[in-house]
Amino acid sequence: MKKVGLVLSGCGVMDGSEIHESVLALLAIDRASAEAVCMAPNIKQMHVINHLTSEPDEGAVRNVLNESARIARGKIHDIAHVKAEEIDALIFPGGFGAAKNLCTFAVEAEKCGVNADVERLVRAMHAAAKPIGFICIAPAICARILGGLGVKLTIGNDKSTIQKLTAMGASHENSAVNEIVVDKKNRVVSTPAYMLARRISEASAGIEALVNAVLKMADKKLPAEAKH
Amino acid sequence: MKKVGLVLSGCGVMDGSEIHESVLALLAIDRASAEAVCMAPNIKQMHVINHLTSEPDEGAVRNVLNESARIARGKIHDIAHVKAEEIDALIFPGGFGAAKNLCTFAVEAEKCGVNADVERLVRAMHAAAKPIGFICIAPAICARILGGLGVKLTIGNDKSTIQKLTAMGASHENSAVNEIVVDKKNRVVSTPAYMLARRISEASAGIEALVNAVLKMADKKLPAEAKH
Repeated sequence: MKKVGLVLSGCGVMDGSEIHESVLALLAIDRASAEAVCMAPNIKQMHVINHLTSEPDEGAVRNVLNESARIARGKIHDIAHVKAEEIDALIFPGGFGAAKNLCTFAVEAEKCGVNADVERLVRAMHAAAKPIGFICIAPAICARILGGLGVKLTIGNDKSTIQKLTAMGASHENSAVNEIVVDKKNRVVSTPAYMLARRISEASAGIEALVNAVLKMADKKLPAEAKH
Repeated sequence: MKKVGLVLSGCGVMDGSEIHESVLALLAIDRASAEAVCMAPNIKQMHVINHLTSEPDEGAVRNVLNESARIARGKIHDIAHVKAEEIDALIFPGGFGAAKNLCTFAVEAEKCGVNADVERLVRAMHAAAKPIGFICIAPAICARILGGLGVKLTIGNDKSTIQKLTAMGASHENSAVNEIVVDKKNRVVSTPAYMLARRISEASAGIEALVNAVLKMADKKLPAEAKH
């Protein structure tokens, strides 16, 4: 049974993981008879947003790992302890948490930094030629880490966001909500989900395609040249 | 387009709505070309549980409506303002929030009380012969409100919980995780979901069946006798 790491960033679209995207990824992983391994960094959230008013809840403090545990029903690992050897693939759902807690794209755009454990694991997966999937705004993390390789990805068709990703070296390809963009060389798959979705079933179509493409790649033996 | 009310109770299995069940219900409703109308009571949660440690977070205060808004991506109503005339069906996901915030079943068992707005809306839906679905532990709410009518429902096969439901007057029928139990007379549908599910795809099967059964009932004209 393939093990797919799912990197969560809190619980709620405005300050953490997009909940629908995370659950739809868990569903697609399970339906493909793979096992999800949820993880998140054990750090404070950038802030807490009241999702009813969209306003910051001043003074509130929440922990990314603890909040992510809500989506994982308690079964979750501190990403600091997860090694690339333990999983066959890695997937990042979106939500502002991906751009606020896993990296600082939401506030620093193309000058953003990435959480050290997230960067370590992405680099280790890439070095081992294991596939990585990025949903919604999460491709920003990929652009920051693998932009130097001209990694190909999609966040849909939002011009301002695309400019920031290409400024980090990424090559952007427009896509529809139910489509995925595959960078075979770097073994990276991406899909826009709620960057474009107006309904949960639209997000579901792209995420299911992404999970299946990632798992198909995880099945393939490495090409000879990738071993060097 | 049919409108299906979804009554949330927070955000997280241990102190609010079970997140997977809520998202799977939203997905099934959307796939059936119906519209979900999310709602929750504007009240304090009974408590806040750290989902990593399963321990109460002493002193923490969260609001049921605000936390439920995370699952609803901000698009949610205070249940106090929702009338039965505005929706065609009503569905309750599970999670401890259903038994802690919507009613007090988790602490008072068969002597539990129900949130006044939840009770008002369930009674109004029932009086209008509009279908209501209860997932996981949420049938406890139904047993409390409609137990006097001997309402038929399922929470799976847990003997201790079944005893408490029958003590409130409900008639319990054992069921498998992918099955639903239908009370045609009272227009009530239930499914065990995470009372039994070991995997998200198992919960999904029962919830999809429940949503479809509820929508099918909402399509049917009322029998003549139900109008009186």
